[in-house]
Amino acid sequence: MQIHDVLTHIDSNLDPARERWFEFLRIPSISAQPAHGADCVRTAEWVRDQLRSIGFEASLQPTAGHPVVLGHHPGPGPDAPHVLFYGHYDVQPADPLALWDADPFDPKLTDGPYGPRVVARGAVDDKGQVMTWLEAMRAWHTTTGTLPVRVTVLVEGEEEVGSPNLEPFLLAQKAALRADVAVISDTGMWNIDTPALTTRLRGMVYAQINLRAADKDLHSGMFGGSALNPINALTRILGELHDAEGRIQLPGFYDGIPVISNSLAAEWDGLGFDEAAFLGGVGLKTPVGEKAYPALQRLWGRPTADINGIWGGYQGAGSKTVIASEAGAKVSFRLVPGQDPARVVDGLRAFVEARKPADAQVEIEVFSTAPGVEIPDESRYVQLARTALAEEYGRPAVLIGCGGSIPVVESMHRLLGLDSLLMGFGLEDDQVHSPNEKFEFRCFHQGIRSHARLLGALGGPRDLG
Amino acid sequence: MQIHDVLTHIDSNLDPARERWFEFLRIPSISAQPAHGADCVRTAEWVRDQLRSIGFEASLQPTAGHPVVLGHHPGPGPDAPHVLFYGHYDVQPADPLALWDADPFDPKLTDGPYGPRVVARGAVDDKGQVMTWLEAMRAWHTTTGTLPVRVTVLVEGEEEVGSPNLEPFLLAQKAALRADVAVISDTGMWNIDTPALTTRLRGMVYAQINLRAADKDLHSGMFGGSALNPINALTRILGELHDAEGRIQLPGFYDGIPVISNSLAAEWDGLGFDEAAFLGGVGLKTPVGEKAYPALQRLWGRPTADINGIWGGYQGAGSKTVIASEAGAKVSFRLVPGQDPARVVDGLRAFVEARKPADAQVEIEVFSTAPGVEIPDESRYVQLARTALAEEYGRPAVLIGCGGSIPVVESMHRLLGLDSLLMGFGLEDDQVHSPNEKFEFRCFHQGIRSHARLLGALGGPRDLG
Repeated sequence: MQIHDVLTHIDSNLDPARERWFEFLRIPSISAQPAHGADCVRTAEWVRDQLRSIGFEASLQPTAGHPVVLGHHPGPGPDAPHVLFYGHYDVQPADPLALWDADPFDPKLTDGPYGPRVVARGAVDDKGQVMTWLEAMRAWHTTTGTLPVRVTVLVEGEEEVGSPNLEPFLLAQKAALRADVAVISDTGMWNIDTPALTTRLRGMVYAQINLRAADKDLHSGMFGGSALNPINALTRILGELHDAEGRIQLPGFYDGIPVISNSLAAEWDGLGFDEAAFLGGVGLKTPVGEKAYPALQRLWGRPTADINGIWGGYQGAGSKTVIASEAGAKVSFRLVPGQDPARVVDGLRAFVEARKPADAQVEIEVFSTAPGVEIPDESRYVQLARTALAEEYGRPAVLIGCGGSIPVVESMHRLLGLDSLLMGFGLEDDQVHSPNEKFEFRCFHQGIRSHARLLGALGGPRDLG
Repeated sequence: MQIHDVLTHIDSNLDPARERWFEFLRIPSISAQPAHGADCVRTAEWVRDQLRSIGFEASLQPTAGHPVVLGHHPGPGPDAPHVLFYGHYDVQPADPLALWDADPFDPKLTDGPYGPRVVARGAVDDKGQVMTWLEAMRAWHTTTGTLPVRVTVLVEGEEEVGSPNLEPFLLAQKAALRADVAVISDTGMWNIDTPALTTRLRGMVYAQINLRAADKDLHSGMFGGSALNPINALTRILGELHDAEGRIQLPGFYDGIPVISNSLAAEWDGLGFDEAAFLGGVGLKTPVGEKAYPALQRLWGRPTADINGIWGGYQGAGSKTVIASEAGAKVSFRLVPGQDPARVVDGLRAFVEARKPADAQVEIEVFSTAPGVEIPDESRYVQLARTALAEEYGRPAVLIGCGGSIPVVESMHRLLGLDSLLMGFGLEDDQVHSPNEKFEFRCFHQGIRSHARLLGALGGPRDLG
């Protein structure tokens, strides 16, 4: 059986795989820092060369920012299924350096409760996860001379700065990116023994509200009791975002949200999520949000409203008896599949308008809108991936949600018509974006094996091991 | 008649009076700026010398900051009424200098709609107003060889920085400051033709509220829908400060407030205050505050609640999906006579406590408390001053309120048992604390004459002109 040979090859070649991973980690491809521009190009070239070494036609594609690595592998032939792998080669800045136990760009194997782990910036996000599928492809290519499917690879270098040039690239390269499904490894497992597929991502409406009153700051002694105070007004409006039950008060906000299916609800219930421990980890005890829903539904399956910032008037030490001329706030809504972001924006405008006092000039600036994303449980690709993971881990893969968004998933859906399989191997304590970022070696190893199985499964029944 | 001679002397000696006033204005006694420390001492010495030149025993009294000028005049004898005059010789900084039409410390007579005016920093606040009573005393002293009453003068040099050393000084010099009544000229007229006595000052409770939730900033995707958002919580609490009718919701907040007397309410109504013009001057149209009360009662006779500052989370450009760990606000309450500031503080704590969500750690820091002050209309001193002003202006002096507080009034009441007569000659457009501060020469002249009349009236019926 091919898959058996492939897995054996993976297990026998972990040392060179790790050495390649370390090479990748040693290049400080910090996309946010202009001083690392050349490092980003070097890293892109390194990825391109990896792809070329396993039968890809690969090149660097210029963008207005850091280049995209684009690669094509013909697989077994033009009729084979076609899979697009997305990843990113850039990493977050490493500061504060003083909080790292070692050089963030000199990866080391250290011991942890699950055996060896690799500590470095990008260990898991996303270099380590990219390596899981690159090494799986290498094993297939080495063992069989080809891949079980046609593969397109897109590895960008600006994910950590918000992918400003990705959508134009997707649009420009639409033809070159044609595929049946996308695979992304930038998410996590449920725990080190329990693999997971992320099938729900929340979307977002992010807006800024500016409320202006008098044309200058006023003395509260002279004007207090007559002049509108914009901070009083803004808190009065925003204080009504939720009702006593935690429901969001924007008109039409919940329109279109389907009930979570019984099977998914049961699956989430079965995860035994410990919300007390989750909150306890950040010094809290008592959940907020919609009282009618269990924790994981509130985090993955229900929308939220959070004021992310607020300002106005005097913020210095001591007292100043000012009535400010303006106040502002940033407000964001996490959306779930079924909600129309445009309708949420309309609801926000109507909500504010209905509560706006006379004399208040209100401006609402919308920074971003993105719908929630759901990969249907019954999708053939989800089923194939679940099976591949179950075979690797000896237990079912769980379908989980993600409270945040992964914008590329929504972009590829909207611009390329592609659903994404989110199969990742990170753990909650991986310190993503923080000092001492790490990736468990066991997760790396089983991640490669899982991708090898998935490639085989995607290629057709003959390849299931 | 003595008063006739005194007034004639005043009218005949306006040029030297103006020259003395200009000398006073030329010394840049900016109390907030350490570089002007020596100027403050020079100014204090100048005031001391003025007092000595008209029969006062006067000296500089050291404080932890700028010195106080203290003077005593024996008047006609030890049984005469005893009046304490309070003023301040320090001024606000003059910046931004670019907005002045001329050097703020080189006073000039310029033409205005009411005739000549003097433009300079301190022209009205408070050097010009101090000169009105100093020149009145000079006229009495020159004409009669003494003053109609015993006079103690206290001119401090730190009013513009909050008088940090005044209360210790009042306590330490309690014996030297014994008097029957205090007179202060640091307030305004109703308009240039209508003199006013300010008989009500609002008090203040000023506090800062800090609300903490998680022990670090959280990602709104990961935690939104479970973790308490301190900005959501703070706006929810502060948004309930007022009800729909504009009434403040602190428990017990309105306890002890007497109804404004019919006569005072009628007097205020009779002023024909144009709230639309008042608000229009700062770009507003629609009054806020307690809907049940007319404008001047809201501004002078009713308490208020204003959020003077608020902050939390991300305030920069664009978006950041953070749930902040804390948020804060500065809140102040303008109080009216009858309200107990301690009870208002208790009410604030109870109000916040009752609305505080689980997981919120709330700290309330109280920066200042001061009760509202009222000088009873029927007070003998108010009646004497009304008469003096009526004789000078040929029309009744009105009793007005002040939405702000003049802390020294409350301090002298509490520490020395002294009521204050607030008889001032400023106009609303005097640009106090702003560029091109000015004092109408006519207000200066009639201010001197009014103080001369008041001194005579305080000295006894024989001196009423």
